[in-house]
Amino acid sequence: MSDLSQYLQRVRSSKPLVHHITNVVTVSDCANATLFVGALPVMANSPLEVQEMVGLAQALVLNIGTLHAEQIDAMLLAGREANRRGIPVILDPVGAGATTYRTGTALRILEELLIAVVRGNAGEIATLAGEKAEVRGVESGEVADTEGPARTLSSTAGAIVAVTGQRDLVVDADRAQWVTGGSPRMKTFVGSGCVATSLIGCFVGASPSEPYQAAIAALTFYRLAAERAAALNPVGPVAYRDAVYTQLGLIEPEDL
Amino acid sequence: MSDLSQYLQRVRSSKPLVHHITNVVTVSDCANATLFVGALPVMANSPLEVQEMVGLAQALVLNIGTLHAEQIDAMLLAGREANRRGIPVILDPVGAGATTYRTGTALRILEELLIAVVRGNAGEIATLAGEKAEVRGVESGEVADTEGPARTLSSTAGAIVAVTGQRDLVVDADRAQWVTGGSPRMKTFVGSGCVATSLIGCFVGASPSEPYQAAIAALTFYRLAAERAAALNPVGPVAYRDAVYTQLGLIEPEDL
Amino acid sequence: MSDLSQYLQRVRSSKPLVHHITNVVTVSDCANATLFVGALPVMANSPLEVQEMVGLAQALVLNIGTLHAEQIDAMLLAGREANRRGIPVILDPVGAGATTYRTGTALRILEELLIAVVRGNAGEIATLAGEKAEVRGVESGEVADTEGPARTLSSTAGAIVAVTGQRDLVVDADRAQWVTGGSPRMKTFVGSGCVATSLIGCFVGASPSEPYQAAIAALTFYRLAAERAAALNPVGPVAYRDAVYTQLGLIEPEDL
Repeated sequence: MSDLSQYLQRVRSSKPLVHHITNVVTVSDCANATLFVGALPVMANSPLEVQEMVGLAQALVLNIGTLHAEQIDAMLLAGREANRRGIPVILDPVGAGATTYRTGTALRILEELLIAVVRGNAGEIATLAGEKAEVRGVESGEVADTEGPARTLSSTAGAIVAVTGQRDLVVDADRAQWVTGGSPRMKTFVGSGCVATSLIGCFVGASPSEPYQAAIAALTFYRLAAERAAALNPVGPVAYRDAVYTQLGLIEPEDL
Repeated sequence: MSDLSQYLQRVRSSKPLVHHITNVVTVSDCANATLFVGALPVMANSPLEVQEMVGLAQALVLNIGTLHAEQIDAMLLAGREANRRGIPVILDPVGAGATTYRTGTALRILEELLIAVVRGNAGEIATLAGEKAEVRGVESGEVADTEGPARTLSSTAGAIVAVTGQRDLVVDADRAQWVTGGSPRMKTFVGSGCVATSLIGCFVGASPSEPYQAAIAALTFYRLAAERAAALNPVGPVAYRDAVYTQLGLIEPEDL
Repeated sequence: MSDLSQYLQRVRSSKPLVHHITNVVTVSDCANATLFVGALPVMANSPLEVQEMVGLAQALVLNIGTLHAEQIDAMLLAGREANRRGIPVILDPVGAGATTYRTGTALRILEELLIAVVRGNAGEIATLAGEKAEVRGVESGEVADTEGPARTLSSTAGAIVAVTGQRDLVVDADRAQWVTGGSPRMKTFVGSGCVATSLIGCFVGASPSEPYQAAIAALTFYRLAAERAAALNPVGPVAYRDAVYTQLGLIEPEDL
């Protein structure tokens, strides 16, 4: 059994409750993926309940994909309570770089909360590291350098930074690791990035004292699912997406 | 033809319009399931239109899965109008017991509106019956007794209570019936509970003078769909979910 | 290669970013369909960012399926900015005719914004043309005449009007064209109308100077997808829907 298998094993045995405050586009995918991998999802957005809800959870996922004013309040309330209780908070800065509102909100969350892991594409991460980057809607343009901005953001935010793309990179203050494998077909359907973030939430929620290894394990696991699904040669993006999500429940710790 | 077949037949022949005020996680599943069984879904949330919309409908489904302040206003406005017109209201108290906000809102809805059927898991129903119960996010913990709390809630709320789980229980003031069959695989995907509530809305909307029998018919029908889908042995939760939803349109009245 | 193939070709080569302000029921379907056909979706609803977001886009889709107050503000802000920049705006008046709120909002959008294409069912279009029409939730009742109301609305709104149903009709000030083919199975799942509107957004976004031909190309393309999916004889609405969406990526310009 490799080093990474234990992180999946812990997801399966401890079934962490992962509280999501997330967008309306992929919320169903994120909830299902969380359940499929072996964790429990709960989606709750109201400022009137998120503090209580996050108190029951093992991880909090904040995804700004369809941001609105009340949701920011909810994110900050839940995030502060999670910080107070030592529950890891994972941030997906969807579309940071596309609008001032998204960039500003992501930076505000990074400033006001202690974030365990930020997961974004290269353009989003470069934006949050203070560089100019093209983000077209929610898709990253070409980025010259991935590692530099990730290191910068990791250091300014005091967070692990996971940059996903053709390859994934996970960095913290003094380490960096590339995760390879996977499949280019992951770009053919909507939500693969959001689901990556949810899976990091599941893995870090099950191994809160080792967020760096847990994030690497989550992305390694997800890339294996992507690879196995691609090997089945499903026709078209719907069948491919379904195959990836199906693999989330079929991969066993010893496969990692 | 059994006694229950007529309830499905009426859904198919009268195509009730089922107005949902529901959560953002499973809203697409609920709309599709409503259409697949033979009814018509409409989702409308704004306090500025729900009274008018519910006036066109044969049933109103209130699901508190991603509750927020304005939605409560909409639920109460639509519910009062439905009560005034004699349109049955079905309540799904998702996550009651997990947060004070959910428990309080579900109780408020039960107090301010005449509810035809409440459909929840054992933890949610026990909570609303005034007992301590574990609800982890939106999932019920172990509950010692199902029937007692269901009877209590039925009597205090003046509503039919449907408790779904390994087996389903439907109770009203002086009757109780267990519905068995189905498949444990229904817990492998997100939304099976919400869809159960929507189906109750379809069946009760088509047979408003017999809500108790219609609720039993809906759950019997749904368990048959779950069973038939399981018999096809689909690999993984996505294929299983798709198979269940497909069965909603394939099951004929004479199959019940 | 027919005249229409170039419109699909342009979607594939220019990958227009299509900004949607849309409902929570079919938002995932619309985003995925946009990606599958070869364009890029972005969903952003907050009045605090829609003006900036639409500035990055090649088309704006406004869909009132789950309308609420703040969303109307966002639609008008984004729409005015799109008008200012010459970005085509596509309107889907979901449920116009069912409630005063929907009818009034659709008419207000048509009055305050320059709309390139309105896409609705016969009941919705007749309603907006000032006629009495039955709209049951979001489904059109029988409509005696399709072309008259479409012409009226086209002339009052100064917009291309696309009426979809058993056959589709596209009219502008001095032209009208029927689009046939397709499959009656398109009515078996939720969201086929919303996706039609999104596809019009993709095609018009890629060919903004020829919105009439682009709208016809989009509907012709979609009907071909519907037809090819039906020819595969998938069992049930879920498999049929998946087959339709899969075809969106498989159809090549030369197939049109």
